[in-house]
Amino acid sequence: MRFDIISANPKITESSLTNGLISRAVKKGLVDIEVHHLRDYAEGKYRQIDDIPYGGGSGMILKPEPIFRCVEKLKSCREYDEIIFFSPQGVKLTQKFANDISLKNNFILICGHYKGIDERVIKKLVTMEISIGDYVISCGDIAALVFIDAVSRLIPGTLTDGESAITDSFQVETGFDPPQYTRPDKYSGMKVPAVLLSGNHAEISKWREKKARSKFRKIKKLNKH
Amino acid sequence: MRFDIISANPKITESSLTNGLISRAVKKGLVDIEVHHLRDYAEGKYRQIDDIPYGGGSGMILKPEPIFRCVEKLKSCREYDEIIFFSPQGVKLTQKFANDISLKNNFILICGHYKGIDERVIKKLVTMEISIGDYVISCGDIAALVFIDAVSRLIPGTLTDGESAITDSFQVETGFDPPQYTRPDKYSGMKVPAVLLSGNHAEISKWREKKARSKFRKIKKLNKH
Repeated sequence: MRFDIISANPKITESSLTNGLISRAVKKGLVDIEVHHLRDYAEGKYRQIDDIPYGGGSGMILKPEPIFRCVEKLKSCREYDEIIFFSPQGVKLTQKFANDISLKNNFILICGHYKGIDERVIKKLVTMEISIGDYVISCGDIAALVFIDAVSRLIPGTLTDGESAITDSFQVETGFDPPQYTRPDKYSGMKVPAVLLSGNHAEISKWREKKARSKFRKIKKLNKH
Repeated sequence: MRFDIISANPKITESSLTNGLISRAVKKGLVDIEVHHLRDYAEGKYRQIDDIPYGGGSGMILKPEPIFRCVEKLKSCREYDEIIFFSPQGVKLTQKFANDISLKNNFILICGHYKGIDERVIKKLVTMEISIGDYVISCGDIAALVFIDAVSRLIPGTLTDGESAITDSFQVETGFDPPQYTRPDKYSGMKVPAVLLSGNHAEISKWREKKARSKFRKIKKLNKH
């Protein structure tokens, strides 16, 4: 799988791409990531990448030309499955969506900033607008991190067996993990539930399923706020 | 506003915290961020921060002691409004939620990794579980970035006037920004809509509202998938 990130500020994602899970997938050769600086595709003395909006209003808009140039150059090197733009207007990222998209291979990720991007980029280049949630963040770069992490971890081999994604939240019927405990068995006046120490695997499974279900119900209620 | 991040791998967020909008808020003195390495609060020769789950199962669970020690040290220095743990089981982050929480001051952000965290941390320390969306990511650190960015940009003074958050997506009735255009007025066979070049501000407003509304309807339909 390959991600080409087009960014107005590549430094933002630098350390997240070179540490943690994403970098493990890269080191294992399962994922390739390249970050392209929009400014390298801008022209003129000031290599301007944004400009004021037509029709007035606040904020700067990313100019079309540098993005078109960068995408065209990338497309001349290989085929892409999707050219993604992150925006609150996109299709909501869900686990099911991540599962489906993890079967594809090559992605261009266009990261916006501030007030937006020239609409012609979306109309002509973008094949998919994705939203990571119903809130505004300052740049698409952070959304790209969320997307790359959520998708990369689903590629067989990224996680070790012990971290298998199959039992993740959202992958099981109840939607959520049960409560987890590790050593010590007593800490700060709180004990690990006896059933987990019992060695009775049938009872442990039953307890875990029940706990996950009740968490699920509680959260469904909470999120109705 | 102050964010104390407790992390098993502080390198993940390093460059995102020192570049882009978050670093601007820090440089303006509006936000303080400190990242605490869980390993610095662990004991023993190996400074172990995680261990296998009681009752069996895959994945390692973050041990309670280092987190309790770190939180207790932080709480001895100042008052905290919320101690947040990022998990799929949390209350969904929305723009309204971000608006509300941006009125508070001091936050401890506990970042989990892999299969989870000892439940006693959630029971005894955490005041709020937050989910950035219905998908699984490898660590709470990336969720913390999303949260810090979404909240920091709402602090008066973080954004310049030209980027005012008031007209953001989700802050206006229609929910979304209208399409935006900047120079050049013709590019790759596509023209900027004539109304935006008309100078007629009443017409421009009407056009923008109509476009934002139709985007809103389209996306509501798309997200029913």
